[in-house]
Amino acid sequence: MSYATYEFDGRRRVGRVDGDRLVPLRGLTELGLETPADVLAAATELPDEAVALNQVRLCPVVPNPDKIICVGLNYLTHVGETGRELPKYPVLFTKFASSLVGPDDDIVLPAESHQVDYEAELTVVIGRTARRVSKEDALEHVLGYTVANDITMRDYQYKTHQWLQGKAWDRSTPLGPYLVTPGEADVSAAGVRTLLRGEKLQESDTSHLIFDIPTLVSTISEFTTLLPGDLILTGTPGGVGYRREPQLFLADGDEITVEVDGIGRLVNRVRAES
Amino acid sequence: MSYATYEFDGRRRVGRVDGDRLVPLRGLTELGLETPADVLAAATELPDEAVALNQVRLCPVVPNPDKIICVGLNYLTHVGETGRELPKYPVLFTKFASSLVGPDDDIVLPAESHQVDYEAELTVVIGRTARRVSKEDALEHVLGYTVANDITMRDYQYKTHQWLQGKAWDRSTPLGPYLVTPGEADVSAAGVRTLLRGEKLQESDTSHLIFDIPTLVSTISEFTTLLPGDLILTGTPGGVGYRREPQLFLADGDEITVEVDGIGRLVNRVRAES
Repeated sequence: MSYATYEFDGRRRVGRVDGDRLVPLRGLTELGLETPADVLAAATELPDEAVALNQVRLCPVVPNPDKIICVGLNYLTHVGETGRELPKYPVLFTKFASSLVGPDDDIVLPAESHQVDYEAELTVVIGRTARRVSKEDALEHVLGYTVANDITMRDYQYKTHQWLQGKAWDRSTPLGPYLVTPGEADVSAAGVRTLLRGEKLQESDTSHLIFDIPTLVSTISEFTTLLPGDLILTGTPGGVGYRREPQLFLADGDEITVEVDGIGRLVNRVRAES
Repeated sequence: MSYATYEFDGRRRVGRVDGDRLVPLRGLTELGLETPADVLAAATELPDEAVALNQVRLCPVVPNPDKIICVGLNYLTHVGETGRELPKYPVLFTKFASSLVGPDDDIVLPAESHQVDYEAELTVVIGRTARRVSKEDALEHVLGYTVANDITMRDYQYKTHQWLQGKAWDRSTPLGPYLVTPGEADVSAAGVRTLLRGEKLQESDTSHLIFDIPTLVSTISEFTTLLPGDLILTGTPGGVGYRREPQLFLADGDEITVEVDGIGRLVNRVRAES
């Protein structure tokens, strides 16, 4: 099954994706804290209120996560291009809920940054509260998967050794388009890629994750309680713009695509802040 | 004025501190997103429902901030003891709302960490939405000040170059006891210190902040929208346990005090996780 959070006729709802339509679920306004796995599975569909996908605004698939935890340097090809050492523990940092935009929203280049970069990432959505869960039990806490473009302002990221100010810009990070449940998602070796200006800039698959999904859920849940709707952005492969020669950054008028096979594709227009 | 978020008789409320009593404010359940400066100033006091401070449980003064942004290396004495370079831009990282505990709650030592350290910090509470505010206007967005003990699991902090997993442990970080409004708080040179086992382990004052409060609010608001209730932990002076010789960490049975003159004092018992 796939689900979306969408707005139609002034109302925010959760819908199941049914071909080119969304079938709303009774009583649910958005995917997140209020939609743990059991609630989502038990929700009643309202087929009479189905709406065409092209009639709605898709929201970030989880619009208001309690926590967004991102993983850095989780593909060998990306570790290699940064010149850093292979991590023995996942490199973890955060974004804020306000960092997210919907799958069809524009990526707005802030006037202050001149190095806005892309990062294609498989994203885990938590579906059941998790604290100190083992790797063996970790997948029971996953609601499903989606895609993020972990937009990064490199000139801000490297202002100090901590990355927050390069990662957490308001309305920077497309998330979606859908939540794909584990029964429909094979993330063991799903292709991950970025396309821009007719070129394939990133290409790998999730079998190359250094820390796999059970390890990430287990590791993070050791120190903090993961809640339904929490997001784990699992890291990006090599090929980011900052590490290319010459460097490449997003520009006004670009259209950037990031995709994870079987999970989804985000295509976003890039525009300069007006 | 000083305010607290407290629980009494199964109900959470906001109260104005009046000597050894709390006078509840009508309609307010906690300091934070719902108590911007104008709402707090206009709230009606309910003196008939006043309660003695020693009868209540004090909550983290802002129990559910949307964002907690911490500043590292913001006193010369602390930069010096870490051997790092003087930062040209504030070193920023985050905690989660779930990292907080109340001013009278215990600091629980997690079984996994063997290096739990203290950090006394003046904390700014935002009172009015702030995005891209100038240093000149920044203080208009401050609701008031409080105190945090930025408890840090050093063995986790240094697992990688990003600090999240050492800073964001559930229920680790005392915050409070009160919000002190700017009219009553002089934070230009307020003493900041830590007391443990009869020793003064940290001692400085806020005139030594490398990045002052207007600079922090302005800098952070450049990339993210600060909301009412958001917290900025302004950094800690030299003297942390990890940098002492020999090193010193919190132990079961300790009682640790951090205080900022004119703002407040946190005294917390330390106990091993049972």
